[in-house]
Amino acid sequence: MNFPMIFSILGTVFLFESFFIALPCIVSLVYAENVGIDYLIVSILCLLVGLSLKKIKPKTKVFYAKEGFIAVALSWIFISIMGALPFVVSGEIKSFTDALFETVSGFTTTGATILTDVEALSKTSLFWRSFTHWIGGMGVLVFLLALMPLSGGHSFHLMRSESPGPSVGKLVPKVRSTALILYGIYIALSIANMIFLLLGGMTVYEALVTVFATAGTGGFGIYNDSVASFSPYIQWVITIFMLLYGVNFNFYYMFLIKKPLQGFKITELRYYVGIFIVASLLIFLNINSRFSSSADALRHSAFSVASIMTTTGFSTVDFNLWPQFSKSLLIILMFVGACAGSTGGGMKVSRFIIMAKTVRKELFHLLHPSSIKIIKLDGKSIEHDVIRSVNIFLISYMSILMLSFLIVSLDNFSFTTNLTAVITTINNVGPGLDTVGPTGNFSAFSALSKYVFMFNMLAGRLEIFPMLLIFVPHTWKKQ
Amino acid sequence: MNFPMIFSILGTVFLFESFFIALPCIVSLVYAENVGIDYLIVSILCLLVGLSLKKIKPKTKVFYAKEGFIAVALSWIFISIMGALPFVVSGEIKSFTDALFETVSGFTTTGATILTDVEALSKTSLFWRSFTHWIGGMGVLVFLLALMPLSGGHSFHLMRSESPGPSVGKLVPKVRSTALILYGIYIALSIANMIFLLLGGMTVYEALVTVFATAGTGGFGIYNDSVASFSPYIQWVITIFMLLYGVNFNFYYMFLIKKPLQGFKITELRYYVGIFIVASLLIFLNINSRFSSSADALRHSAFSVASIMTTTGFSTVDFNLWPQFSKSLLIILMFVGACAGSTGGGMKVSRFIIMAKTVRKELFHLLHPSSIKIIKLDGKSIEHDVIRSVNIFLISYMSILMLSFLIVSLDNFSFTTNLTAVITTINNVGPGLDTVGPTGNFSAFSALSKYVFMFNMLAGRLEIFPMLLIFVPHTWKKQ
Repeated sequence: MNFPMIFSILGTVFLFESFFIALPCIVSLVYAENVGIDYLIVSILCLLVGLSLKKIKPKTKVFYAKEGFIAVALSWIFISIMGALPFVVSGEIKSFTDALFETVSGFTTTGATILTDVEALSKTSLFWRSFTHWIGGMGVLVFLLALMPLSGGHSFHLMRSESPGPSVGKLVPKVRSTALILYGIYIALSIANMIFLLLGGMTVYEALVTVFATAGTGGFGIYNDSVASFSPYIQWVITIFMLLYGVNFNFYYMFLIKKPLQGFKITELRYYVGIFIVASLLIFLNINSRFSSSADALRHSAFSVASIMTTTGFSTVDFNLWPQFSKSLLIILMFVGACAGSTGGGMKVSRFIIMAKTVRKELFHLLHPSSIKIIKLDGKSIEHDVIRSVNIFLISYMSILMLSFLIVSLDNFSFTTNLTAVITTINNVGPGLDTVGPTGNFSAFSALSKYVFMFNMLAGRLEIFPMLLIFVPHTWKKQ
Repeated sequence: MNFPMIFSILGTVFLFESFFIALPCIVSLVYAENVGIDYLIVSILCLLVGLSLKKIKPKTKVFYAKEGFIAVALSWIFISIMGALPFVVSGEIKSFTDALFETVSGFTTTGATILTDVEALSKTSLFWRSFTHWIGGMGVLVFLLALMPLSGGHSFHLMRSESPGPSVGKLVPKVRSTALILYGIYIALSIANMIFLLLGGMTVYEALVTVFATAGTGGFGIYNDSVASFSPYIQWVITIFMLLYGVNFNFYYMFLIKKPLQGFKITELRYYVGIFIVASLLIFLNINSRFSSSADALRHSAFSVASIMTTTGFSTVDFNLWPQFSKSLLIILMFVGACAGSTGGGMKVSRFIIMAKTVRKELFHLLHPSSIKIIKLDGKSIEHDVIRSVNIFLISYMSILMLSFLIVSLDNFSFTTNLTAVITTINNVGPGLDTVGPTGNFSAFSALSKYVFMFNMLAGRLEIFPMLLIFVPHTWKKQ
């Protein structure tokens, strides 16, 4: 393992974070809040740590997949620790564990909170909290890659480790160009999103933090009722944009290079839209009688399905009070998640398509043993390595889920609370059911459980393997 | 698909069932109950159906794996329908759906019940109910194979479809001899079990039905409190025998042919015992303070772990009232289940070992990309086909579980009830939590949900594929 190289990358990451942490100071200036100084202090600290790490000179440029995984895992852990400091220094979140939980939840775009009263926070801290979503959504290292020239091997392994989905989507041969295109699309969508929200009467501040949380499919709100008090127009705008951010960004790229038809043919996109429509209708039918108008029922069902599927986690109503069928469907959708190569979490629609295809192939094989059927997706045959990695992903996912569920049960909350809290964190959604429902929060859990949730959020965002590798003793051996 | 051949096998199965259904008549004679006549009527009906089916003469002896799967799936469905009739004819269970649920639960050795008052049933019907466990435990077709000479191809495919576990364990080259050895061990264990129960003061009738339910790892009791009112001695005897029936029967065969050391080296056996000990101790620590003596706490924790792991489902206490940690651990153990090649259900310890090994291999591969590491079990490398089938098994299992959970939610019971009801049926355990806890039952569910549970029980017992194949339209095509 080339640790000097990893430390050097960590240094660069800290330099970027130092800049990010300085941004909330502007909010402090605008709203004349005192906490800006705390952000400035942490920003300088971050800068110093970054500069010290940059002094480490790697002897060799050797950089393999394993270095990529470890660099990504460590980057995410350390930016979370550093990002939690302003909350602690300012005293707005007193416990370090809680502050770290909130920051991990932010960067991983989960949106689960330990705050019982969100509105008690300063505008500066709420800005930072939401901004972590925006950074985490597209990825810290993808951001770094977009701006920094790095030699080929490094950048590909870093991108591969941070990007969601069963296979890596390099849009163009150069990794840096791919990263630039991704962030370009991300920023363009965010600006469009901002404009539509401002048209609905949101203040600039409200629109900005809402865009951060929507774009990253995070879900941190700045009001205690999430986005329930906004107008139906705004709620529909959020619904549509959550769905847009949950789309595979390859689609937008194809659209840009004038191959719109090819884009629409992406199998994952069709299933993604199909699942959204079917699930929204089923929930609409299930909850229609509870609302005074069908328009309301449709808005709430479409919003909730979009919010859960894209793993954003905003809410317009407390779906914890809905009939069991709707709740069960939402919990299942948490696993499905959004498209690969989007900012959304979950297991990703494409993994489910691949899994369904392998089962279908096996059944066909049982009926016709001599058949050799290759599994195809979008006209291309899926490599055996991808299928194997999907299977191992599923096994690891379920194992982490079961083990976390067991540990968290020690706190003796209800079965539903424990299980849905684990499901919602590993899938980077935010709310679960019962105590951790849309109107609840994670404050009552023990520190042990909170660290388990943090691990789950990171494992979910980084797709398991980087987080598992840091627990393999072999990783830390000199050679 | 060679349907005439499949019908012919079904005919033989009915002939055997006709004999089985006649057995409870003896109980009727002993206890002077009137229901014996109903069993006799159904037995004759079964005989006639069997003889009619036997008249179908297959034109060809072609018999592949697919014929094996379908023959097994249809056999299990039809013996359940036939086996449910005595309950309906006698009027002891009025609804056909309920009677079918009870019979499917019996044959699949699940032990979930729709009866609110078990003790209201006649001794004759309780005997039949428990006897279905004993038949289902080792398998209807394995029984048939033990007694009937069938040409090689058929018998192997039938055995493969009915035997639990990731790979087929033919103990000796001849399938018939393997089936005979398996039933020989099964009967020997049952007799030993019977003797130990009689020594504890059980009546012959009590001992007999308890042996049926223990041997098949079924769990139907004849008292409303399951086995809670029996002495600690009897409860320990049941604990030990549940564990013995959950062992891979290969072990006993190795023991018999004087290779005991080789037997003890079976990896699955060591993990099975290890999981039992660790889980029992964890639950003991978690519940110790609730009991007046540690001996009681240890007995209840060991009993519950053995009962759940082997998927028997007997209970000595209502574990639904235990702390969440114990409940969560028991629910996870439902998935683990017993050893492959035992009478127990669940996903089987060996599948978990294989899955854990594939994840470990993948992590190693990430660190050392040039390594080609073969996955080994008991010194032999695991074939790629076995690993693939384990993966597809997991995917199918989880998909059925999710879909069932969704449908069952329509009844609007609690999240915990719905989910654990599905988990306990697909793993052939019996009790779940909440409404379907050890003191509860499945009576309140809708007919739709009950049929979903029946499908789950059959899918769990037959390890998914036979039950999935009957839903593939292609299966039913002429050629």
